[in-house]
Amino acid sequence: MIILKLGGSVLTKKNLTTPEIDYDNLNRICEEIKGSFAKKNKKLIIVHGAGSFGHPPAKKYNIGKKFNMEEFPEKRIGFSKTQNAVKKLNMEICDVFIDNDLPVVSLQPSTFIKTSNGRIKIANLNLIKDYLENNFIPVLYGDVVLDDLLKIAVLSGDQIIQFLAKNLKSDKIILGTDVDGVYNKNPKTNNDAVLFKEFNSLSDLDSFDNTTNVDVTGGMLGKIKELLELADLGIESTIININKEKNVYKALENKDVKGTIISKK
Amino acid sequence: MIILKLGGSVLTKKNLTTPEIDYDNLNRICEEIKGSFAKKNKKLIIVHGAGSFGHPPAKKYNIGKKFNMEEFPEKRIGFSKTQNAVKKLNMEICDVFIDNDLPVVSLQPSTFIKTSNGRIKIANLNLIKDYLENNFIPVLYGDVVLDDLLKIAVLSGDQIIQFLAKNLKSDKIILGTDVDGVYNKNPKTNNDAVLFKEFNSLSDLDSFDNTTNVDVTGGMLGKIKELLELADLGIESTIININKEKNVYKALENKDVKGTIISKK
Repeated sequence: MIILKLGGSVLTKKNLTTPEIDYDNLNRICEEIKGSFAKKNKKLIIVHGAGSFGHPPAKKYNIGKKFNMEEFPEKRIGFSKTQNAVKKLNMEICDVFIDNDLPVVSLQPSTFIKTSNGRIKIANLNLIKDYLENNFIPVLYGDVVLDDLLKIAVLSGDQIIQFLAKNLKSDKIILGTDVDGVYNKNPKTNNDAVLFKEFNSLSDLDSFDNTTNVDVTGGMLGKIKELLELADLGIESTIININKEKNVYKALENKDVKGTIISKK
Repeated sequence: MIILKLGGSVLTKKNLTTPEIDYDNLNRICEEIKGSFAKKNKKLIIVHGAGSFGHPPAKKYNIGKKFNMEEFPEKRIGFSKTQNAVKKLNMEICDVFIDNDLPVVSLQPSTFIKTSNGRIKIANLNLIKDYLENNFIPVLYGDVVLDDLLKIAVLSGDQIIQFLAKNLKSDKIILGTDVDGVYNKNPKTNNDAVLFKEFNSLSDLDSFDNTTNVDVTGGMLGKIKELLELADLGIESTIININKEKNVYKALENKDVKGTIISKK
């Protein structure tokens, strides 16, 4: 079973005041998934980020930060707004998948996952297994959830991936983002940025400048930490640039793609 | 805890080719809920129907009917389309609730409910209890789900209500529809239609003409059967017309509303 993460920064346009899907990217990616999925009826789970839909309300209401009980009414509305915003994104993404004849089933994290201090504590995966057995493509996404300690928390797509990979024993994780992998500094603003081809421990990050993809869920550093936990369990991940044509297809087909492999030596 | 059903026929416009929310009705109903909920911080669950969003794809793909395995690819897409259509309806409805400062949390049935031959078999309600305890208003809706025997099935809002009421021991069920209650024939086309003020068993239905609200989930007859099962457990329901101003508010406030009470003698 393959888990494919579609970064929110690829699927949505971040610089707009009104959140908007990047349909060019999404349609191309769907075509690439279809090309690989349809051929072999692979077991596939897709996880997408919250992108420009989820981050603004989550930030505005400081979801995931501790608060006093008198702030709870406002926090609740923040939760409602964030949940509905990412649901809208998920709905629009699923629309494009369906138009491409991909049998997606949306699984809303806030409906079955609860965290404790921001980490997944309760999540029954039986239904996901059922959908996979019936050849559906489960689609999960960054969401807001109830939390034992914080009351409400942000659950990143990256943590979902890590949890699913570990508990469903995935064969492969493909993490699609808008850069070619993990660099020692932001490659968009630094010409001398160096790409890590392979990546084995957090200590490799000493020279890392965490300014790429900074978002409420921790950006690239958050992704790496989640994936290193998987590497510890023997599950290998690849971070690739899915803004580049055919990269999703190639990765699904086990072909060489420029990127960073996260594994244990 | 009160369960309030908002009929799809009230929230959506059924006669349009493109599904559309009836914002006049929905905004008015939100105001009425807010008037009652805000005052007393009541525990409230809202369940809405699929209306003109869910019924067309569910019908087109015959979701819930037995099929041969070679038809499964097409059925899967039908499932995906129906799930996404009702999710869109739910998202648009939640938007209006949130605009009215109601702390709704959407709970997608297909994410945590599985049926067997069309009846709910698996559904963990712990998270709904958690959301209620934290003073959220859970919002559920008619959806498509995996089914042990049929592979995929339609799960009506009415069955969800019956299941929640039974398992969460609700105090009251308010079933909002577009007629004043249960009549012996369609009151919209028959001037001599007689309203059942109280309703105690299926045998009361001998003279019933089931042409009102006919939809894929069984229309009024389906609603009555679900509610009679609750009556057997001592849980009383009221079917009221929520196209009429103040009826939702009055019902939530335990005031007299014209309608049909479903109970055991």
